[in-house]
Amino acid sequence: MISTSIYASPLYRLEKLSRRWGVDLWIKRDDLIPLWLGGNKVRKNVAILDAASKGGRKPEVLITNGGAESNHARVVALMGAQLGCEVHLVLHGDKPALSTRGNSFFYRSAGAATHYVDSEQIGPTIVRLERASLQDGRSVVVIPGGGHAVEGVEAYSNAVAELPTAPDYIVHASGTGGTQAGLLAGVEKLGWSTSVTGISVARAGQRGREEIIKLLPCSFPLDKIHFRDGYRFGGYERHSPELVSFIQSVIRDEGIPLDLTYTGKAMFGLRDLVRSGEIPPGSMVVFWHTGGLLNLTSMNL
Amino acid sequence: MISTSIYASPLYRLEKLSRRWGVDLWIKRDDLIPLWLGGNKVRKNVAILDAASKGGRKPEVLITNGGAESNHARVVALMGAQLGCEVHLVLHGDKPALSTRGNSFFYRSAGAATHYVDSEQIGPTIVRLERASLQDGRSVVVIPGGGHAVEGVEAYSNAVAELPTAPDYIVHASGTGGTQAGLLAGVEKLGWSTSVTGISVARAGQRGREEIIKLLPCSFPLDKIHFRDGYRFGGYERHSPELVSFIQSVIRDEGIPLDLTYTGKAMFGLRDLVRSGEIPPGSMVVFWHTGGLLNLTSMNL
Repeated sequence: MISTSIYASPLYRLEKLSRRWGVDLWIKRDDLIPLWLGGNKVRKNVAILDAASKGGRKPEVLITNGGAESNHARVVALMGAQLGCEVHLVLHGDKPALSTRGNSFFYRSAGAATHYVDSEQIGPTIVRLERASLQDGRSVVVIPGGGHAVEGVEAYSNAVAELPTAPDYIVHASGTGGTQAGLLAGVEKLGWSTSVTGISVARAGQRGREEIIKLLPCSFPLDKIHFRDGYRFGGYERHSPELVSFIQSVIRDEGIPLDLTYTGKAMFGLRDLVRSGEIPPGSMVVFWHTGGLLNLTSMNL
Repeated sequence: MISTSIYASPLYRLEKLSRRWGVDLWIKRDDLIPLWLGGNKVRKNVAILDAASKGGRKPEVLITNGGAESNHARVVALMGAQLGCEVHLVLHGDKPALSTRGNSFFYRSAGAATHYVDSEQIGPTIVRLERASLQDGRSVVVIPGGGHAVEGVEAYSNAVAELPTAPDYIVHASGTGGTQAGLLAGVEKLGWSTSVTGISVARAGQRGREEIIKLLPCSFPLDKIHFRDGYRFGGYERHSPELVSFIQSVIRDEGIPLDLTYTGKAMFGLRDLVRSGEIPPGSMVVFWHTGGLLNLTSMNL
């Protein structure tokens, strides 16, 4: 039989929101990438591991870090388990209670070793784990937290080519900047005039833009980096009743899941940019859904 | 731009389990159908509403029933909201606490009216709600619980044609029989010799087979209905540490989610049939994933 690509994601039009908001709104569902419960971290980690495996020994140990309910950690754990690697996750935040609600169920199920530490202990813990594995003669790949690496950027740069035509805007949740740098590079590579707008889920504008610039494979004027920090709702993993009620309105209109940490804020920002006229009526907009249903189900409202 | 079909689902090979179990194992991911958080209830309810809308008035009120964390109720609620219908869900079991964990978050978000009743009150409640809407002059569609209707069967009969070649076996979670009847009818329509094996998640064998026969559009010998009741783990929504540890092993090997109510039992049954030799080595098997991640996340272990 012929396989569907296990990295591909659907693209379709959000009919009701298009009518309601007066734009031609499409959604790219990276949350539905079949592999390892999907999301943007799948694209990034596949690329990182591909690069690490080139010409060298097959990795035997993977080490990475993240928050207590990290999508990235879940992907590394599942990827490592499938490839037969030993996986160490260095996690900050409180150890979640044993439950089936979120990412932690999946990385525990995958058999990853978890190390819960205070944030200042992340670096030393990774170093200690890496040394111990190297002393045992094993090949180790240390994957940056969030898959924040040039290979991750390249993965998103390539993903842009999955869009059959150039939209006027791509809007997405922007964290540490890798996805946005990739989308910007991809648009540039294709010679499109598409504006890539990242809605910050945590960082203030200046810091966010600088980090994106660092990741870009080519020089970019700062003013072409649209990184909007007005929809952070107080910061990473913070939210408000207004945001909850907004994601519920999108569930009602389109039957798609958004979470309160990433995609909910991004869609909220998009609506505001449309309302204010900054994204003009009739524009073709792709909302790039980067995943996070497990962030929603693990949240206490 | 060109849309991906919002009803289509990926199909790919489970490489590691194929090697481990000695069969040619593929997975059809209906849990990744983009619409309304996916699963087999999407196919069924789209077909039911299409049929109800043919030649008549656009439905204004949808009424259905299900358990407190029903996938079917979630799909009807989201479908109704998107179409601008008023939706009534008659649910048995305890009203779930307000949380973001499971199906109930989505049907509450969709704005569906929920009516929690004892099981003997399901019928009378539906009748009362239907009458009230009809008296207001509105067009009502009462959708059977679970989407258990001939249109739902036909939807699965058509879905079989999405497989590019005839496998030796299709294995799936079988509840009240609609999905299985559809898959059987689809295989028959295509003239395939594929064996369709339903793993019962609740019902005993004789009862289950009789219900499937009732739903079939053509006559079928009882002995061609492979409905296996040996993997129920004590009944509907019941499970055991062995089942939990089995779904964790599949998460480890293939990075796919299974739940403890439906797909976990089905995959467990499949492994047992392979182990016992009833499904011979080398057989091409399609595991049809019918959805249920939200059943997993709403479960208390």
